Parts: sequence; C-alpha cells; structure tokens
Amino acid sequence: MSVDWVQELLREDLRGLSAYGAPQLDVPVRLNTNENSYPLPDEVVRAVSRAITGEIADLNRYPDRDAVKLRADLAAYCGHGLSAEQLWAANGSNEVQQQLFQAFAGPGRTALGFGPAYSMHPLLAVGTATTWVDGRRDADFGLTVEHAVAQVRAHRPALTLLCSPNNPTGTALDFKVIEAVLAETTGLVVVDEAYAEFRRPGTPSALELLDRHPRLVVSRTMSKAFAFAGARVGYLAAHPAVIEAVQLVRLPYHLSALTQAAARAALAHADVLLGTVEAIKAQRDRIVAELRAGGWTVADSDANFVLFGRFADQQAAWQTLLDHGVLVRDVGLPGWLRVTAGTEQETTAFLNAMKELRP
Amino acid sequence: MSVDWVQELLREDLRGLSAYGAPQLDVPVRLNTNENSYPLPDEVVRAVSRAITGEIADLNRYPDRDAVKLRADLAAYCGHGLSAEQLWAANGSNEVQQQLFQAFAGPGRTALGFGPAYSMHPLLAVGTATTWVDGRRDADFGLTVEHAVAQVRAHRPALTLLCSPNNPTGTALDFKVIEAVLAETTGLVVVDEAYAEFRRPGTPSALELLDRHPRLVVSRTMSKAFAFAGARVGYLAAHPAVIEAVQLVRLPYHLSALTQAAARAALAHADVLLGTVEAIKAQRDRIVAELRAGGWTVADSDANFVLFGRFADQQAAWQTLLDHGVLVRDVGLPGWLRVTAGTEQETTAFLNAMKELRP
Repeated sequence: MSVDWVQELLREDLRGLSAYGAPQLDVPVRLNTNENSYPLPDEVVRAVSRAITGEIADLNRYPDRDAVKLRADLAAYCGHGLSAEQLWAANGSNEVQQQLFQAFAGPGRTALGFGPAYSMHPLLAVGTATTWVDGRRDADFGLTVEHAVAQVRAHRPALTLLCSPNNPTGTALDFKVIEAVLAETTGLVVVDEAYAEFRRPGTPSALELLDRHPRLVVSRTMSKAFAFAGARVGYLAAHPAVIEAVQLVRLPYHLSALTQAAARAALAHADVLLGTVEAIKAQRDRIVAELRAGGWTVADSDANFVLFGRFADQQAAWQTLLDHGVLVRDVGLPGWLRVTAGTEQETTAFLNAMKELRP
Repeated sequence: MSVDWVQELLREDLRGLSAYGAPQLDVPVRLNTNENSYPLPDEVVRAVSRAITGEIADLNRYPDRDAVKLRADLAAYCGHGLSAEQLWAANGSNEVQQQLFQAFAGPGRTALGFGPAYSMHPLLAVGTATTWVDGRRDADFGLTVEHAVAQVRAHRPALTLLCSPNNPTGTALDFKVIEAVLAETTGLVVVDEAYAEFRRPGTPSALELLDRHPRLVVSRTMSKAFAFAGARVGYLAAHPAVIEAVQLVRLPYHLSALTQAAARAALAHADVLLGTVEAIKAQRDRIVAELRAGGWTVADSDANFVLFGRFADQQAAWQTLLDHGVLVRDVGLPGWLRVTAGTEQETTAFLNAMKELRP
C-alpha cells in the first residue's frame, strides 16, 4: 500500500503486510485452492434454487440470528449423537475460527499451531491481536506426541490448532496427538477438519472424541467435499457451553437467510453432493502413485490435495505448470508445491504438465 | 452461561456477558429492529431468484474475493463520482465496521462514540479489544461541535464513530460536527449512515464530504431502505487506501457468491425497492405528529424509527404494547422506547396500543 497516512493510521502489526489470497487467475485447469472441481448436479441446483427463492420475498426481515434449523441439520449430518446446541455455523470456517479466537484468545493470550499448516491460522491471530506460536512439524511434516506436548508445556496456549487432515501436507493426525494435547493443555483445542470427508479408510474423525473432551472443538466446512465453496458455510461441533461463548462475539445476524436456506438444501442432498468424494480420492491416490513412480517425493494424503516435491526452485516449477495451463499452489514451502485432486481430465493435464519437470 | 470451566477459558472482558440481540418474538406487529415492513415485490423476487440461480451450479468454486462487480454497482448507486475502489462490502455493516476496528483500532487504541447511539459499536470494541469511550450526547440527545471536539481532544481516538441519522434517537448530524471532528482528530472518522435513505429533505449525506476528507468513512447498509436485512449486505465508502487496509483483515472470500449476486440484482432494481421509502417516511412523520399531539415527548427523526417517551417505567410500557400485539424496542434508555415506522396498518396498531398508556 502506497499511501503514507494510511500506514500511520493502521495497527502497527499490519503495516507493510499484503492482503491474503492465492492468485485468482483465469486458466483452464485450476488446482490451487482445493476446490471441488465438480459443478453442482442439476438436481441439487434445482433444490437449492427452490429453497432460496422461498426466502427472497421475506428478505426485508432479519434472518434467524441463531440459525437453529441449519445447526440441527448439521448435527444430523455429523452424527455421533450430536444435537443443534453442539453445532455452530458461520460464513466459512474462517469466520467460525475467528469467533473462537475472539472469545478464547486475543490480546495477552497465545495460540499455538504446528506449521506448515493452514495459512489462515496465524492471520486470524494477527486479526485478533493474539500472540501466535508456530510449534513446527518435523522435517517430514510429522507431529509426534512428545513434540506437541512439549510445545503446549512451553507456551501454555489458550487455543491450540491442530489440522487433520493437515493442509498443505494432507496427512491426518493420530488420535494420540490430539488426546495428548488435550491432556496437557488447560486451553481449548481446535481440530480443523476442513478435509475430513476425504480421509482414507480407517482414519477416524475427531468428532468421535467430543463426548469425552469438553475442551475439544472440531471445525468443518462445506467448501470442499460438499462443493459449496461459493456459498461460504463453515461450522464447528463442540460442547454447548463453547457455542454459547461464541455467541458472545458473533456479529448479530451474521449468517444470511439465503446462506441458511442454501446450506439446508445442500445438506438434504448430502448423498448426491458427496458422490464426487470417491472420484476425487481416486484421482488423489493416482497423483500420489504416479508422482512417486516418476521419482517425486510425495506426502501421504487424507485430503483432496497432494503436497509434492522436491524442487530446486518451486517458483520456477509453478510457472512451468502455469505455462501449460495448470494452476497449482505455491504455499511458500521451499521445494514443495500443492496440487488439488480435480477431475480425471484435470489430473491428467497436471500429470502431463509434470512431465516437463524433472525430480 | 452456567458452565464454570468455559467462564475460565473465556477472555476476561467477556465473562458474565449475555449475547447481543433483541428478542425475536412471534407477534403480529414487529416494530423492534427497524426492518422494512414491506416484503420484496414480485418483480424483484424474480430478478433476485434468477441472479442467484445462475450462480448455484458454480458454487463449487470460491466467490470473487474482492467482490469487484458488486462494489462497482454500489459505487454507481452512491453517486458523488465514487468508483469501485472507494467501496467495500461485507455481511452487514456490522462486519464492515468490525473490519475497520480490526485494521485501525484494537488493543492499546481507543474508539470514541457518542451515546446513546448504535449499540453494536461498543460491542465491536469489546470483540476487537479496543478501549471504548462513550462521549455522551446531551440530555436532549444533541451533539454540539464544542462537546464533540472536546471529547476527541481528551481521548485521542484512533476511530471516532458518528451516527447520522443516529440510532436510537433518529436525528441526523450537522455537517459542522462531522467536519469539526475531522479537523480535530488524527484518526479515522466513521459516519454510520445505516438509515440515510430516510433522511428528511434538506439533510445531506456525508458521502458529499468524502472528496475533501480522506480520513472519512461512510458506512451504509442494504438492510433498511432496500428491505434486504435477510441478505446481509453492508458497505462503506472511503478513500481507496482505506479499502486496501480493510482487505488486510477481511476474511478471504467473506462474501458469498449468492450474496454478491443477490445484492447486484437488488441494486439493479433500486428504484422499485426504494419505492417504500416515502411510505415509511410518511408513517414516521405520522408517528411523530400523533404522539406529540397525544402529549408524548418525541425526538425528531430522519430515520425509519422514532424515539418516544417519557415513561415512568419503559419496561412496563413495552410489556403493555406487547400485550396488544405490538413489539417495540426497549433500547435501555430509562423513560424511552423506540418504534419502527411500519406499514400504515402496523402504525395504526401501534398508535392504538399507545392509547392504553398515558404520558
């Protein structure tokens, strides 16, 4: 930003920063933001359209401030005996998590993550004036019980953020790590499960742990498996008292009547929408297998994306792929790039473009 | 909130608070949240439905992060030579203002308002850990240049919030006050014009001042005159550098594709939607005139609501009106209540119910 007087008015810790965000480039194959490559099926388009259209005449009235019906539907989708009072929804899991930072972290408090992980977490700390500590994963992007516990002990975080499956590495977390962190910390533990629906067979969800751990929060989104990124629906499952706490900082009427209706219609067609998940997982496993066969180093993935390398210069490799019409993500990890598992055709285009590069 | 362990985890300044919000009661005549009582006309319902339905298939993709087309439409609506880069939109003016607090206020900084004013302003300060100073209006709810300037001088606010027309009192602010505050402060000045479209003839909008005052921000909403409360669209107009600053703290993809499409369709039908404004103003003026004729004290109003009193016990009066099927707002001002100007029928119901009370 070039205007001096605004730099002077800005909060000190924001000066000189650039706005977050992957480039939104118009290229044939966009595999950079872990979107679901499949447009919504006609059946769901019609249902969502009907649901929304039913709300429009009454948009002169404020929406249900507490989105009770949507939260009941989300509870039913999550299962595990959850009820509406254990669910909370907002405009994307970014907003859900920002509310957690506002209620439970903030000035004078510390939030702990284990990078490389979701890049918004440290930015949410900045936006809420929370001290951020990056506990770092090991060189293979692993996270051991011993290391996680030592970091909690050292920093006494008010909020600990664990990603499972982790973004950008793709791998789910062992329950032992989550439970060890819960046992050690006196604060809240957020398991960000944005990619949960893509996990491999045998990998559990932290939703299973909610019963036994009142200080556990599981954050989810409809942006990925539900192919609903454009509708902005994130949610969390937690103890009802955590939900009540979040309601102290949520902006009143934060979730529009349109969003609530659209999300409920999508949830009513969860089986159809989640029909793409197996196809995406197949392409993900294909990427892992073919890149490894080509001599690349590839992280295991329980998500809809794959982290691969190592490149002498990942920025040059990113540009080479873009020159071949394939947009992937440079997540700022030297030597690595991240690619979303798209359709079979998109995946083929990516794998073909990769042949221009040598491990 | 009854659970002790959550109270202990909560930020200290949130402990013991209750969630914000007027009661959402199901009564025949709801005149408590300054909604527009008129449902959207069929013509607009169809246009919004068409616009939204065109977006649904592509909801698998993230929305335009910067909402450029919507901002261009908002600029055209605002006039005064404004362009897209001077506009910013979010999920209600609450979110717009929260972003201003995050970028320009926060820990160690002060925000100044002049109460009684919009009750969310101090809550936004709490949510962003900003020190809040209430500069207080005078006993007649007026705000003089001398008092405003003295408060700015005393507290050196990073952010000064002025409401015009003011909520809950209804009266617009003299330009002299806005310009005097701008001349005195080194910080940002936000003029909250949520009710601007209802102002009386001859009352100008602070949009006129933007040209000459780069540290001025005008906050607006589509919730009131546009009858679009359920869609959650707030916006601000400011210097392009202020917009860039807000983009440092906005959550990526904060505004859904559905919201952007709905708002653009509504703006394309602004003339139809704003067709209710004159009818609402007529009912507002009728409320002012009839209540005064009945011996009540009534604040002048440039908004779609009226503050009236004085009651020996405004809570009892609120209950009496509710018992007659009319929900008004107890804004927490001893002796006063606030009523939204609704349809002619709703206004009649309110005025009839008022006959049960004596000034």
